[in-house]
Amino acid sequence: MTEEAFDVMVVGSCMTDLVCRGPRLPKEGETIHGQEFFTGFGGKGANQCIQAARLGARAIMVCKVGEDSYGDRYIQNFKDNSVHAEFVWRTSAAATGIASIIMVNDEGKNLIMIVAGANMLLSGAELQGVLPALRLSKVLVCQLEISPEASLQALRLARHNQVTTIFNPAPAVPDLDPEFYRTSDVFCCNESEAELLTGLQVSSVEDGRQAGQELLRRGCGSVIVTLGHQGCVVLKAQEAAAHHIPTTPVTPLDTTGAGDSFIGALAFYMARYPTMQLEEMARRANRVAGFSVQKAGTQTSFYNKTELPKDLF
Amino acid sequence: MTEEAFDVMVVGSCMTDLVCRGPRLPKEGETIHGQEFFTGFGGKGANQCIQAARLGARAIMVCKVGEDSYGDRYIQNFKDNSVHAEFVWRTSAAATGIASIIMVNDEGKNLIMIVAGANMLLSGAELQGVLPALRLSKVLVCQLEISPEASLQALRLARHNQVTTIFNPAPAVPDLDPEFYRTSDVFCCNESEAELLTGLQVSSVEDGRQAGQELLRRGCGSVIVTLGHQGCVVLKAQEAAAHHIPTTPVTPLDTTGAGDSFIGALAFYMARYPTMQLEEMARRANRVAGFSVQKAGTQTSFYNKTELPKDLF
Repeated sequence: MTEEAFDVMVVGSCMTDLVCRGPRLPKEGETIHGQEFFTGFGGKGANQCIQAARLGARAIMVCKVGEDSYGDRYIQNFKDNSVHAEFVWRTSAAATGIASIIMVNDEGKNLIMIVAGANMLLSGAELQGVLPALRLSKVLVCQLEISPEASLQALRLARHNQVTTIFNPAPAVPDLDPEFYRTSDVFCCNESEAELLTGLQVSSVEDGRQAGQELLRRGCGSVIVTLGHQGCVVLKAQEAAAHHIPTTPVTPLDTTGAGDSFIGALAFYMARYPTMQLEEMARRANRVAGFSVQKAGTQTSFYNKTELPKDLF
Repeated sequence: MTEEAFDVMVVGSCMTDLVCRGPRLPKEGETIHGQEFFTGFGGKGANQCIQAARLGARAIMVCKVGEDSYGDRYIQNFKDNSVHAEFVWRTSAAATGIASIIMVNDEGKNLIMIVAGANMLLSGAELQGVLPALRLSKVLVCQLEISPEASLQALRLARHNQVTTIFNPAPAVPDLDPEFYRTSDVFCCNESEAELLTGLQVSSVEDGRQAGQELLRRGCGSVIVTLGHQGCVVLKAQEAAAHHIPTTPVTPLDTTGAGDSFIGALAFYMARYPTMQLEEMARRANRVAGFSVQKAGTQTSFYNKTELPKDLF
């Protein structure tokens, strides 16, 4: 075990995106010819970890991949992004997670099948082995693309060891275990996740405030509800007022992964600027995510520290 | 250039099958979770070449793949199957061909997008470089998963050099260049291809005879129309009668690739048993394909010579 301290540990998912682009979507029973095929690195956990690392966080990923070439290449991707990969476990019992995406040129239409595969085999019990590294980490980040038991176990272990937690309830589930709220120092979700969790409609800033207050009442330390181009609202258990953080307007090219860029950046700021106000961290994380939407792809759109304005650091 | 003679040269396609199996097919705009993901080696050209090689033919594949890991793995697959791969060209201008297949458990429902990619960049002009190896080959096999110009150029070169040709017009096109018939020593298609080419309905043996006679009139040396469990009909330009070759009944598990197993086996028999009657070759090729439908997968279902009854050789 390394004695080095980590800024950000992510316990979450790795997925390889397999993307076909065609003239239209195939119907049931149909074979059609597409124009382009490409693969990409994805998965909410890995995306967030890689954005944190690109900003300069000492980041460590905890996940499970298959004994296959997708797994080999994902581990290389972590190394290429200076993410510590010693807790990227491998299994021969399932393939590396994939998202098979069939999309249509320019129209934004798609259909997706996700096979989480090895991601679902990361067990809560196995996370005990990560404890020495977790104790040396400043911030833990979890999502819901692995088994909920494993995510909750990681959050519990972090709380028990005074490691700050960020929980991103994505993809959203209507019946989230209430312990997720109580183990979240920062509970960060987008509009549709906030809607599904609270049953309230969330489209305006005021909606975000109300949903945030409901989530906060469930036991989180703080809540951030992201609202796309409307920025986000930040709510803290110790303060009555919700703060609206507007964004700088940008012209989006591809918003895929923008939420993960925000969370990765937030984790970076929480680890490296522990005295900064959460509102200011959210404002900067919004700017980092705003840069990502102006480039194509998921991880390919995430900026490095050296490419970003100096006032973000 | 090797001085070795080849039994079978295939000029055709390589595709990697990317298969997701789920509880149902996703609709437009939908993301659903599937149970299983796996990759397979496919493409009609490569399938046929590998079946011929497994039966013991000295086989050589002429195709184009991308400068990517799918290409690396396909080249290794050829080597693992003792297929000569010195004319597997590579390009950085397109990805290795893929077929993204989303399928439903047990119900036989699927939707497929094919991105032929590098396959379409194999040019007729490039085939001139293959001529020394083609001259040393006994049988050339072509299909329609590469550009029609490249397939036709290969057939022309073979004819000009007294190499026997098998043409498999798959996937079928309604407006096939008439030169394909005139350059085919054996024109081999299934029911639906025969229907599309002739405009006649093909379901019975008698239908197969009539469609075969129409195809024969267009200038082929011989025609084989395969009819699934009904076997096939064989027609020769020099004979008036069409011969029906019935099959031995089998219980099919997975018919994917059965047509390619038949063509690969036919090419093997034509190269290695040049004095055998075409009817007997078709009968044996049907038996080889009949074994393949009792195993799952495409190339994974193709038998080796050592696993097959001795009376097939």
